Amino acid sequence: MPANILSGKPIAEAIKSEVAAEVADLRSRFGFSPCLTVVRVGEDPASAVYVGSKVKTAAEIGMISEEIHRPVETSRDEIVAIVDELNSRDEVDGILVQLPLPKHVDEREILERIDPLKDVDGFHPINAGRLTQGHDALLPCTPAGVIEVLKRSNVDVAAKHAVVVGRSNIVGKPMAMLLLQENATVTICHSRTRNLPEITSQADILIAAIGRAGFIRGEHIREGATVVDVGINSVSDPEFAKELFGDDLEKRLATIDKRGSTIVGDVNPKEAIEKAANFTPVPGGIGLLTVAMLMKNTVKAAKMRRL
Amino acid sequence: MPANILSGKPIAEAIKSEVAAEVADLRSRFGFSPCLTVVRVGEDPASAVYVGSKVKTAAEIGMISEEIHRPVETSRDEIVAIVDELNSRDEVDGILVQLPLPKHVDEREILERIDPLKDVDGFHPINAGRLTQGHDALLPCTPAGVIEVLKRSNVDVAAKHAVVVGRSNIVGKPMAMLLLQENATVTICHSRTRNLPEITSQADILIAAIGRAGFIRGEHIREGATVVDVGINSVSDPEFAKELFGDDLEKRLATIDKRGSTIVGDVNPKEAIEKAANFTPVPGGIGLLTVAMLMKNTVKAAKMRRL
Repeated sequence: MPANILSGKPIAEAIKSEVAAEVADLRSRFGFSPCLTVVRVGEDPASAVYVGSKVKTAAEIGMISEEIHRPVETSRDEIVAIVDELNSRDEVDGILVQLPLPKHVDEREILERIDPLKDVDGFHPINAGRLTQGHDALLPCTPAGVIEVLKRSNVDVAAKHAVVVGRSNIVGKPMAMLLLQENATVTICHSRTRNLPEITSQADILIAAIGRAGFIRGEHIREGATVVDVGINSVSDPEFAKELFGDDLEKRLATIDKRGSTIVGDVNPKEAIEKAANFTPVPGGIGLLTVAMLMKNTVKAAKMRRL
Repeated sequence: MPANILSGKPIAEAIKSEVAAEVADLRSRFGFSPCLTVVRVGEDPASAVYVGSKVKTAAEIGMISEEIHRPVETSRDEIVAIVDELNSRDEVDGILVQLPLPKHVDEREILERIDPLKDVDGFHPINAGRLTQGHDALLPCTPAGVIEVLKRSNVDVAAKHAVVVGRSNIVGKPMAMLLLQENATVTICHSRTRNLPEITSQADILIAAIGRAGFIRGEHIREGATVVDVGINSVSDPEFAKELFGDDLEKRLATIDKRGSTIVGDVNPKEAIEKAANFTPVPGGIGLLTVAMLMKNTVKAAKMRRL
């Protein structure tokens, strides 16, 4: 039986509706709307798209949203001054500095400069530490979104074996900590792991966050597992596409023909759909949750700081 | 062949010698000795022993050490005032508030109040976050001591499968993060884990930090594994002692007879010695490292803050 597809769209929409209701409630009861400010430096086209979507979604659900855009040559001191000013502006609830920053700027310094109470990306070390220690924190949006998808799809996590492939600070490590908090037994694999298929095929829940197109194959997947694909990669080779796509191959090949590439996750979707019980698609899966969870974090930050 | 016993004593002594040399160097080159201040509240007898050992060891290796002892009825405000004063005293490099604190005091609030640069226990969330994110931090002493034992005993960690049983903020979780940083594949098990022996018996390196006397048995251990026992428990039942101890049973029974109890870790030593390639004993293993690593942290804190 092919895998049940865990579409991100209805879940992201449900979260956005819930957040919109909270925003309306804050406005009517306390007279303010949460405010998200996104800082973008330079002309990276993907960043422009991401930031546009974040600012637009915030506005749609009734928040105040603002983009501060500066040219690529903006100095470290100027960026620090922007962050300091946003930290001090009382009506700003969430500050998001879109990555990557230009190479002459130390990203870590800038991220650590954000007031942890306004750190809606959840990247500040004090938020990472609170998460690790099991305390309330602003959580990184993507792994928090994975938890929402699992819960809202009625995938049991407690006492299950969850295997996370990838150990980034943005996804892999916080993902492992969140799954642990949900009482999973958690294994973290990475580029140095030996016998990867032997370990991943023990997973009841397998999370792929490695950044390699279609890397997780059938041999990595336990029959009946839930497979969550966090990757977003581009595929332009039609031969490779034939290995990756099943029912939608024609459509995918047409996309490559028309636009030069198509999007695939870190999991081979054809093989995952054959073996897994549940599978999050790419596109249309976890990616949609990231913006929704950013909205949720912004309202949480507003409540934590203002109420 | 019985396991090679990884005795903590020579390793702890080596670390203390290295730290003593660093202290002497700081004094001769920069004219100061690092200062460790330990705060103890109440009359817990174990705390008195631990604090005594920390203060004495610091003095032995040439540091300035100081104990601030207050009665059990000391208020939250008074403890906060002590921490604030230590934070502001420039000559204090390391602040350790001995746990447990009396029940009327919120331990977390007090620990988070310590200046992260003086947090030589490594319990502040910002240090936990820096560790999780792979950045330089003051590390919790016990898991950092485990890494020292593995490295100085030439136990390879990179690309090995390490299984940590226990997920406390003090040992289990930071232990997992440190092993990950050393490029191990890491699994974290806990009380909710199903089929524990099936998972632990895959471990090349098995770390037991659960707080249950002799809980890890032969069936949990892979033949030839390295088994690190972080537990410290008391056993008073001679029948149970017979299950736990092998060559030293007579001595252990004599100790129970004389003192009412003997010390055992979270691992059944008799069965571990039969199956493991390497085993850290209790007592005489990891416990000895904790104080040595505290000394190392205090010198590190002094250098980070003063140089």
